[in-house]
Amino acid sequence: MTLLAEMTRDELAARMAERPIAILPIGATEQHGHHLPLGTDSFLAEEYARRIGDRVDGIVLPTVPFGYSWVWKDTPGTVTVGHRTLEAYLGDVVESAERSGFGMLVIADGHESNVTTMKYVVRDHAARSSFPVLRLFYPKLSEILAEHLESETWHGMIHACEFETSLLLDARPDLVDMAKAVREYPPFSEEYAYGAEQLGNVSESGVFGDPTLATAAKGRAMFDALVEESVRIIQKARAR
Amino acid sequence: MTLLAEMTRDELAARMAERPIAILPIGATEQHGHHLPLGTDSFLAEEYARRIGDRVDGIVLPTVPFGYSWVWKDTPGTVTVGHRTLEAYLGDVVESAERSGFGMLVIADGHESNVTTMKYVVRDHAARSSFPVLRLFYPKLSEILAEHLESETWHGMIHACEFETSLLLDARPDLVDMAKAVREYPPFSEEYAYGAEQLGNVSESGVFGDPTLATAAKGRAMFDALVEESVRIIQKARAR
Amino acid sequence: MTLLAEMTRDELAARMAERPIAILPIGATEQHGHHLPLGTDSFLAEEYARRIGDRVDGIVLPTVPFGYSWVWKDTPGTVTVGHRTLEAYLGDVVESAERSGFGMLVIADGHESNVTTMKYVVRDHAARSSFPVLRLFYPKLSEILAEHLESETWHGMIHACEFETSLLLDARPDLVDMAKAVREYPPFSEEYAYGAEQLGNVSESGVFGDPTLATAAKGRAMFDALVEESVRIIQKARAR
Amino acid sequence: MTLLAEMTRDELAARMAERPIAILPIGATEQHGHHLPLGTDSFLAEEYARRIGDRVDGIVLPTVPFGYSWVWKDTPGTVTVGHRTLEAYLGDVVESAERSGFGMLVIADGHESNVTTMKYVVRDHAARSSFPVLRLFYPKLSEILAEHLESETWHGMIHACEFETSLLLDARPDLVDMAKAVREYPPFSEEYAYGAEQLGNVSESGVFGDPTLATAAKGRAMFDALVEESVRIIQKARAR
Amino acid sequence: MTLLAEMTRDELAARMAERPIAILPIGATEQHGHHLPLGTDSFLAEEYARRIGDRVDGIVLPTVPFGYSWVWKDTPGTVTVGHRTLEAYLGDVVESAERSGFGMLVIADGHESNVTTMKYVVRDHAARSSFPVLRLFYPKLSEILAEHLESETWHGMIHACEFETSLLLDARPDLVDMAKAVREYPPFSEEYAYGAEQLGNVSESGVFGDPTLATAAKGRAMFDALVEESVRIIQKARAR
Amino acid sequence: MTLLAEMTRDELAARMAERPIAILPIGATEQHGHHLPLGTDSFLAEEYARRIGDRVDGIVLPTVPFGYSWVWKDTPGTVTVGHRTLEAYLGDVVESAERSGFGMLVIADGHESNVTTMKYVVRDHAARSSFPVLRLFYPKLSEILAEHLESETWHGMIHACEFETSLLLDARPDLVDMAKAVREYPPFSEEYAYGAEQLGNVSESGVFGDPTLATAAKGRAMFDALVEESVRIIQKARAR
Repeated sequence: MTLLAEMTRDELAARMAERPIAILPIGATEQHGHHLPLGTDSFLAEEYARRIGDRVDGIVLPTVPFGYSWVWKDTPGTVTVGHRTLEAYLGDVVESAERSGFGMLVIADGHESNVTTMKYVVRDHAARSSFPVLRLFYPKLSEILAEHLESETWHGMIHACEFETSLLLDARPDLVDMAKAVREYPPFSEEYAYGAEQLGNVSESGVFGDPTLATAAKGRAMFDALVEESVRIIQKARAR
Repeated sequence: MTLLAEMTRDELAARMAERPIAILPIGATEQHGHHLPLGTDSFLAEEYARRIGDRVDGIVLPTVPFGYSWVWKDTPGTVTVGHRTLEAYLGDVVESAERSGFGMLVIADGHESNVTTMKYVVRDHAARSSFPVLRLFYPKLSEILAEHLESETWHGMIHACEFETSLLLDARPDLVDMAKAVREYPPFSEEYAYGAEQLGNVSESGVFGDPTLATAAKGRAMFDALVEESVRIIQKARAR
Repeated sequence: MTLLAEMTRDELAARMAERPIAILPIGATEQHGHHLPLGTDSFLAEEYARRIGDRVDGIVLPTVPFGYSWVWKDTPGTVTVGHRTLEAYLGDVVESAERSGFGMLVIADGHESNVTTMKYVVRDHAARSSFPVLRLFYPKLSEILAEHLESETWHGMIHACEFETSLLLDARPDLVDMAKAVREYPPFSEEYAYGAEQLGNVSESGVFGDPTLATAAKGRAMFDALVEESVRIIQKARAR
Repeated sequence: MTLLAEMTRDELAARMAERPIAILPIGATEQHGHHLPLGTDSFLAEEYARRIGDRVDGIVLPTVPFGYSWVWKDTPGTVTVGHRTLEAYLGDVVESAERSGFGMLVIADGHESNVTTMKYVVRDHAARSSFPVLRLFYPKLSEILAEHLESETWHGMIHACEFETSLLLDARPDLVDMAKAVREYPPFSEEYAYGAEQLGNVSESGVFGDPTLATAAKGRAMFDALVEESVRIIQKARAR
Repeated sequence: MTLLAEMTRDELAARMAERPIAILPIGATEQHGHHLPLGTDSFLAEEYARRIGDRVDGIVLPTVPFGYSWVWKDTPGTVTVGHRTLEAYLGDVVESAERSGFGMLVIADGHESNVTTMKYVVRDHAARSSFPVLRLFYPKLSEILAEHLESETWHGMIHACEFETSLLLDARPDLVDMAKAVREYPPFSEEYAYGAEQLGNVSESGVFGDPTLATAAKGRAMFDALVEESVRIIQKARAR
Repeated sequence: MTLLAEMTRDELAARMAERPIAILPIGATEQHGHHLPLGTDSFLAEEYARRIGDRVDGIVLPTVPFGYSWVWKDTPGTVTVGHRTLEAYLGDVVESAERSGFGMLVIADGHESNVTTMKYVVRDHAARSSFPVLRLFYPKLSEILAEHLESETWHGMIHACEFETSLLLDARPDLVDMAKAVREYPPFSEEYAYGAEQLGNVSESGVFGDPTLATAAKGRAMFDALVEESVRIIQKARAR
């Protein structure tokens, strides 16, 4: 795996004959409880992308740090972009990857709310071009969570929970303050599910789940499983 | 200076009473000759932002890594976004900074072609809000170059030249390969100046100037001067 | 329940003092297997809206018949609109409902792929106005399916399956041809989940599930449960 | 004539070899005096489309129920969409009709203010594709009104008048309350003609003309004439 | 009447206390038969604006020279802008006129196809602001034509006909070559009325009507009548 | 040189075999000190275009009179359009020039703030078409100013200064009131350079420089030099 930003033009040119895989991490900047940093989703996306890259000799693009974080928009520290804006930004990156001559682009997303935007981008691109683009947000996540987590998710959402905390304990333990981790399962919010409520008004700590049970070992195991599955998907797509 | 992405919500909250200065580095991903990495502008913007942040107790946002690099769009490795797209993306970041409660946002740009977009963003924002936003692309650059550089710029443009190379030698010497630095002053291109030519067809090496004369010492001196001037501007604006 | 389109201005005016609830059904026009009509999602959305309306004295708006059906776009009979277009169209309807003086607007969606668009619309609206808008796509669907269905869903998706067929058997039995119903569980498609594949290339019959087990009685029961839950949500929101 | 929404995919497929004519009714939802329902334009557009369909073996799409009704936007009951929004929505429908394999699309409009939008849509489409699209808003209307009406129009406008009322008496007599019909010829409004006045401030009853003279027989006769002329136009276009 | 473009800031400032009327001529650049110049609509709009200005002490803005001329887009010499583009451009001009402190803006249009765009602009503006804007395209044109013309219009359209030619003979006789004027009444084109045909394929000479009957005297008379009516409308609006 | 607006379709057709050069002047409407008219940039652009046209047998299009004048937007008399709007408008004009069959389009800009928009337009056009478009804003201006001016520019900006005044004294002396010319060199404004300040708050008179030194002779000399250089560029591009 190499980081595109650190390569010179010649180093990149030397790779292009094999039409390498480019990997674009996309994250978010938003509150993540008392124990995780605001950039958690970006750090995880970048790590996820790098580990995939190590397996497929990928070239990892710089991380897109601001995603669609509307649900935290009034919580200080959130830097959110509109979904249409994000769509346009990612769409341009896809076109650039194609023009550069990569063999494929894999978008590695670390933020749940970016998923639909990612899907729209890849679909709209496919209408114009056959350049292959994959969109991955922790494939087979439900199965992997069921296997490795001790806690339940909050209605299927992952945020500052046992999952994310474990992953960050594996990737960037220096950024995790377990002493501040709290368990919180906010009541189901109908205003959030059926209206326009922001999550900032739903969770007190900003946690949805039980991060107190997180460990680096779980994180490594889950990261491995996610990367394994992602690599399998990529290789299968590459073969097509 | 702290990095927003690494802060927790509480660490940020503890700062907000003083309405701190947020600094957003914006860069680019494009060829930079044989001796500099593709992410040069992003690395420099980020360093620029951090050094300003050290002086004004700023909080540095993650770097926006893809800017308006149309002039290199067909050169492999370039990841460019449309100017309107970049405008929208930056505009949303500005709004987020305001909502978060920062006292001011400083956009620290390391890429010449982002300048007009930055200007449009700040102007459009001002029509809606009095939240102060500054846009800095190496203020007083001409004077600083005249004082410190041995070489001439190529028609006022800075790209993979003595200036950028010196700065990166100071900030990230591990990413500079001086053995590959070449001097090139392409002929003035009328197709570029008056038409729609891309720079990829103008410079052979991708260099515009003479990076062979670059040194870390010059880089440090110029960085200091730029940061000094930037800090002065910021403090004056803060006082208003 | 009254249908807005059939009311005169006076009949509507007579209701406005109580600030009634308006209900907007949104559907889709796309293939639905051999046994269901192309307008299934619209017929169901309209029925869903009417039954809610009967319970809350609602005024039902005409159905928006074309939704985001990109996944069937190359299958004849599909009439799909872009997600941004749908967002704009629905957004204008929301504003109209507010201007008319309704007490609340409930968007009753019968098509899974409209859900995110509905969410974006309601969120963007909330930034400008406190006029209450709810967005309902079969709330508590998982529980209701688990309770009433004999078959499994295809990876959580509902399309021309036991659920939709049962509902239509209850609402519009004249439009269901059970003799043509087939059971199909296409293999999980990675190109669909992670790429830009259309569903038209995933399912042969267009069915995802087992509609052969559908009955009008199940349909009535599930409709009742969905309407009950929807009414509860609406009344609770009304009280706020 | 068949209704697309009620057809299954197979029923549609069986028709496609002959490349049938698709007909899209577009209407509006807005006040229509004391005697006509809010959905008059949609009911008439749908009936118009169906009768044309009967003559040309057409396949009638579901009706687009909300059009450009800016002139009634502050009158309760109006559901209007912006003209640009409507343009986009209709444009996507046109593309879908082409992709489905229809031989031609006929847009059958029942609302005067949709006419220019319809025109823009068909023109923009023609720049990209040779798929034939016709746009019909009661062709030869002036002649037909001159022949059949007893009353004069209000400056050429048709709204809740003898024309529309007669047509609805023929198509949906259950929705017409002749006891409430009133005659009104508002004074010419310069603010409406040269400014931005809404029609809601121009007519007291919402009527422009004399619907008291309407009869089902006139309605049938005018419908026949309009359909006859429309069919002639369609067949001539088909032959080209 | 003064021309804004020729005034200095002080000359304008001296007028503003009385909140003068600003007049914006909008025209078009498109073929106009063998005997009239491509800029006919712009010349006429400008003359129209100036004469109104003379009567109301107006300040005439420079003419917007390119309008919506889609119907001639493939005829050489046509410079057309999209209707949405024109709408945006005119909308910004309206906002500028308001900011400047004018008492009213009158849009004086000389090109039939700009009319709907003008209408949309004025309506959208009214939603945001009470600054008065009038939109005039030869008010009471039908009556004036009926009174002064010898020839019939071509289905109500005015283009390179007796009307426009007479007006230009009065305003800019140096630009009219009567020796080249021809009479042409193209057959009614169904492809134009109901499809996406351009007018360039409908008229051989580009004339619609009979310009051979045009005279400067008629032009002066019709101009007078149009200006009289326009002034009356403006003064009435001013009084409101 | 001929003016497109004054040509008939035949006069234009007679030229097209040689695929002539079209020249589009773009200006602005904004304050220009006490001594110059609001339309200075438009008058100069038009003269510039005509003189180039005289040398290359060009066909000069009507002038686009409103440009991006945000920096004067709150100063009465300014008519500014948004930069995105201007981009769209100019883009459509470029497409029209290509469709008409011209051999080349030269955009002759008289307003500094239009430059970036002009650049974006020409670049975006080049992505779709090989029709040659040049964008000229006084090429080699710095050298020409250095040679001919007695005064210094204000930080490189030209506005109501010795340069513009001299040019207008040559082109339209009737519009220059030298008695009112004043010299002003406003202090460098950091709010303008790094923020969102408008120029209206920076200069008292609206002048940036010393117009008192302007003469028609200098104007003629500078115009000649600019035209000479422009023609050279055009002929070289034509040869390519």
